[in-house]
Amino acid sequence: MTLKISNFFNFQNKNSKIGDFQDLDHLDGLSISTVNANLYNIKRDDLVLFYFRNGANFANSFTQSKIISENIKWNQKIKKKQIKALLVNTRNANAFTGKDGYQSLKKIAEKLAEGLTKKQLNDDEKPIKVRPDEILFACTGTIGEKFPSEKILNSIPNLVNNIKYTQNKYVWMKAAMAILTTDLKPKMSMEECMIGNKRVKIYGIAKGSGMIYPNMATTLGFIFTDAKISSGLLKNILKKNLTNTFNSISCDGDTSTNDMVSIFSTSEAQNIEIKSIKDKKLADFQKKLNYVLLNLAKSVVADGEGCTKFVSINVTKCKTEEDAKIIAFSIANSPLVKTAINGEDPNWGRILMAVGKSNIKINPNRISLSIGDSKILEKGEVFKKYDEQYTANYMKGNLIEISLDLSLGTKNFTAYTMDFSKEYIEINSDYRS
Amino acid sequence: MTLKISNFFNFQNKNSKIGDFQDLDHLDGLSISTVNANLYNIKRDDLVLFYFRNGANFANSFTQSKIISENIKWNQKIKKKQIKALLVNTRNANAFTGKDGYQSLKKIAEKLAEGLTKKQLNDDEKPIKVRPDEILFACTGTIGEKFPSEKILNSIPNLVNNIKYTQNKYVWMKAAMAILTTDLKPKMSMEECMIGNKRVKIYGIAKGSGMIYPNMATTLGFIFTDAKISSGLLKNILKKNLTNTFNSISCDGDTSTNDMVSIFSTSEAQNIEIKSIKDKKLADFQKKLNYVLLNLAKSVVADGEGCTKFVSINVTKCKTEEDAKIIAFSIANSPLVKTAINGEDPNWGRILMAVGKSNIKINPNRISLSIGDSKILEKGEVFKKYDEQYTANYMKGNLIEISLDLSLGTKNFTAYTMDFSKEYIEINSDYRS
Repeated sequence: MTLKISNFFNFQNKNSKIGDFQDLDHLDGLSISTVNANLYNIKRDDLVLFYFRNGANFANSFTQSKIISENIKWNQKIKKKQIKALLVNTRNANAFTGKDGYQSLKKIAEKLAEGLTKKQLNDDEKPIKVRPDEILFACTGTIGEKFPSEKILNSIPNLVNNIKYTQNKYVWMKAAMAILTTDLKPKMSMEECMIGNKRVKIYGIAKGSGMIYPNMATTLGFIFTDAKISSGLLKNILKKNLTNTFNSISCDGDTSTNDMVSIFSTSEAQNIEIKSIKDKKLADFQKKLNYVLLNLAKSVVADGEGCTKFVSINVTKCKTEEDAKIIAFSIANSPLVKTAINGEDPNWGRILMAVGKSNIKINPNRISLSIGDSKILEKGEVFKKYDEQYTANYMKGNLIEISLDLSLGTKNFTAYTMDFSKEYIEINSDYRS
Repeated sequence: MTLKISNFFNFQNKNSKIGDFQDLDHLDGLSISTVNANLYNIKRDDLVLFYFRNGANFANSFTQSKIISENIKWNQKIKKKQIKALLVNTRNANAFTGKDGYQSLKKIAEKLAEGLTKKQLNDDEKPIKVRPDEILFACTGTIGEKFPSEKILNSIPNLVNNIKYTQNKYVWMKAAMAILTTDLKPKMSMEECMIGNKRVKIYGIAKGSGMIYPNMATTLGFIFTDAKISSGLLKNILKKNLTNTFNSISCDGDTSTNDMVSIFSTSEAQNIEIKSIKDKKLADFQKKLNYVLLNLAKSVVADGEGCTKFVSINVTKCKTEEDAKIIAFSIANSPLVKTAINGEDPNWGRILMAVGKSNIKINPNRISLSIGDSKILEKGEVFKKYDEQYTANYMKGNLIEISLDLSLGTKNFTAYTMDFSKEYIEINSDYRS
């Protein structure tokens, strides 16, 4: 049984009139191209180019792993305030590929830059110079295998030829599909908002962890907006809004060498310039960006390997947000909690076990705990009206909500995770073919 | 397929002539009794008494969880330098049972103390006074269920009646069986050594994690010796020797509210008094105690739920032992590493992923990695002669050894763990009946 909610549009904000993937359309200043570079030997596009002809402000958030892939190293060296392109390949992580892996990116960047520079938008327009250090890379796939630079180099002419200057939902869908590895569903999200008197778009796609073929374990998220926001400000906005979105999810507690979430702004909406993250004119943008990021992040969890339940863990009234986060992830990553949820068993002792092992100082006599709308503990005592059968019925559902109140302070954190099923083991213990 | 090596005597020290469970016999100063208190409603003993008629020096190591069971609270309050008894019940953890849980222990301690005080060894001997605060408790089982104090209280007369003043291997086996929850095998280990001119015995039993019936997730280990060693010194010895034994194992990274490893010395061997842990006369004792602890700890892992592979992870040449330990457990607890091992896939990228996510500063260009005798990485580069097929064949075995050399210092740590199999999920997601 695979989770039915793993469809990509289920986490759209209910209060938003827009947000259905059907509405994704052209975003001024962005062009998209996808090709099948034959990285998998299967019929599907596996190489995606996002091209910003007039440049884009941008900000990245990279994996916190101490072992990072060659493309993350490349991206970290980009010092330009604007970039012109993002190239995403699947099937190979370009991690532990040594100098050869890094040199491959250099060659690809040079060839792609040359191709894009020569590309004529139409006969009237002059080509725009693209430099290799204006290109970002995202890679996902096997760690430690030779990077398929020849295949990618050979695909560049087609990739440049295929550039679509306008997008519709099919172009977006193709791009969202082409960044997947073993995800079951493409992940797309959108919002619109006002900055001053200008309407701006916020579109996003993502991929999650999928590891049928060895080692594929990377979260990628790309957000595109036509808003005019500086790279410096984008960085602050992205950082702030990742905390309760992409940094609140965990499938199995493992971290990739290649994780990367980026935001790109083409400035085509020509909105009023905003200087500070605290500017009220940016409030709506931040709110909607958070929706997009959260929708994508939730979609990643819901499409985690073997996921049959989507689990929200709300930890409230802690001394610090960090305490709440550590406790929430201790629960989210506990194999015993995850298997109990898979077994639809309201096995609350395991939740407390995970709280206890988190190493955060708590007072057991203050803990209140609910699963769904069933109160189980109130101030450390089992709730008298607790009805285990009722809770067990609730757990047969796909969406499980665990709420833990520690009554020690005012800080909260919500983590999102999935259960551990036999399919998880099956998928991840599969032989290489 | 369940691991064949999970038999309890497989981890005995090869260089030791003794150490087979068959050799466990009487240990002066200790008496054992087991009864079926009907805690499970199945035919098996589930309540064990270890009785030290003349008292025993002792030391405990308790769970590091911030949520601890009522019996651990009870034990922490024992201020005596000697105790008279340890009572172990299964089926109920006595955790989150509130005042009632604690009061139950008090009643049981009072009744047991009274029973033991009245107990006549034979007509010639005077009864020896036992006080409630000379009794330790170990509990393992469900968290949050009412503690079955009536059943235990009602069993005390039988328990006292059944006391065996001499032990043989069958008595030990019965005790080792009676502390199990859902472990498949009893876990026993023994060594002998000299302290000065006296031969002393070190016997141990343990139970591991087993969770078919909800929440059973506790490691218990009890070591008995007839050596004469003070409680203060026992404490230091136990602490020192747990580091690379019980504190080096992980089945699933989860920690119980009830974990407890204790050592008891009856002093009947009347060896020369030792004052310092550094005394050379104690060297052999410590070495053999470490064997016993390590054998038991390894047996716990090998009998972990659904375990099909026993995995040793040697992390060497780190700056600190703590760094080595964090990295070793990051690998040991990674679901992706555990599932790859289950799939017999030499998927070394996942091992590096787990190194990277550990948050310890490393230099990827210095990493050397081997699985079994296959060198995979040498100073950050894939070893030219690496033969994946050879390594894949090695991984079909039951004992997997992963060696990681970080070339940053001189400190090492070895962690022991198991793979994640479908059986793990099956066992742990089972409904309550």
